[in-house]
Amino acid sequence: MILKHVLNNPALDRAFHALSDPTRRAIVERLAREPASVSALKKPLAMSLPAVMQHLAVLEASGLVRSEKTGRVRMCRVEPAALSLAEKWINDRRSEWEHRLDRLGDYRATLVKEGDVP
Amino acid sequence: MILKHVLNNPALDRAFHALSDPTRRAIVERLAREPASVSALKKPLAMSLPAVMQHLAVLEASGLVRSEKTGRVRMCRVEPAALSLAEKWINDRRSEWEHRLDRLGDYRATLVKEGDVP
Repeated sequence: MILKHVLNNPALDRAFHALSDPTRRAIVERLAREPASVSALKKPLAMSLPAVMQHLAVLEASGLVRSEKTGRVRMCRVEPAALSLAEKWINDRRSEWEHRLDRLGDYRATLVKEGDVP
Repeated sequence: MILKHVLNNPALDRAFHALSDPTRRAIVERLAREPASVSALKKPLAMSLPAVMQHLAVLEASGLVRSEKTGRVRMCRVEPAALSLAEKWINDRRSEWEHRLDRLGDYRATLVKEGDVP
């Protein structure tokens, strides 16, 4: 009933884990507006560079963020594919639930039509 | 630039943390199809009842799952509002990134029209 491939999706584990931290979400919010250097990302955060780097490492491991060194600056950007993966998983569950409610509604309508319920 | 209320959304912390575990996602997948008792949820999972209860406690704390005792059976169901909250956060980020790409495309089109780029 619950298939192995469902239980085993490390990409989703990592994406949701990455998004479970407010600092990491703040970094993703910033990068969704535009790519930024590590030092630009650090500026509004009240934490040390190593702490920021650690959050970036989690985000990169999850695939939500990519970074590239251009000269002496490391530029970061969001990776929409990883965002889509996580979004799709949630959306699929919500849709399934809503379709179920629709089916229940149809069933009730049938009962009303047949006079089984008022 | 990064506002306090953005950094501080415990509901999102808990929802994404709850979804970062494959067993908890399997439980949500099951409940998106239909409500289920705790023992029905336990059946396909290769773990003890206390382990299942612990995962359910994380899911309930996140608001993704609600449970109610009916007689001697505890029935669980998904809470679509909590799913929507997490889905919306991701969707907002992805939309923002896509709008940015659109604006860049428009800008390039303008440059092409003005003959600044081939």
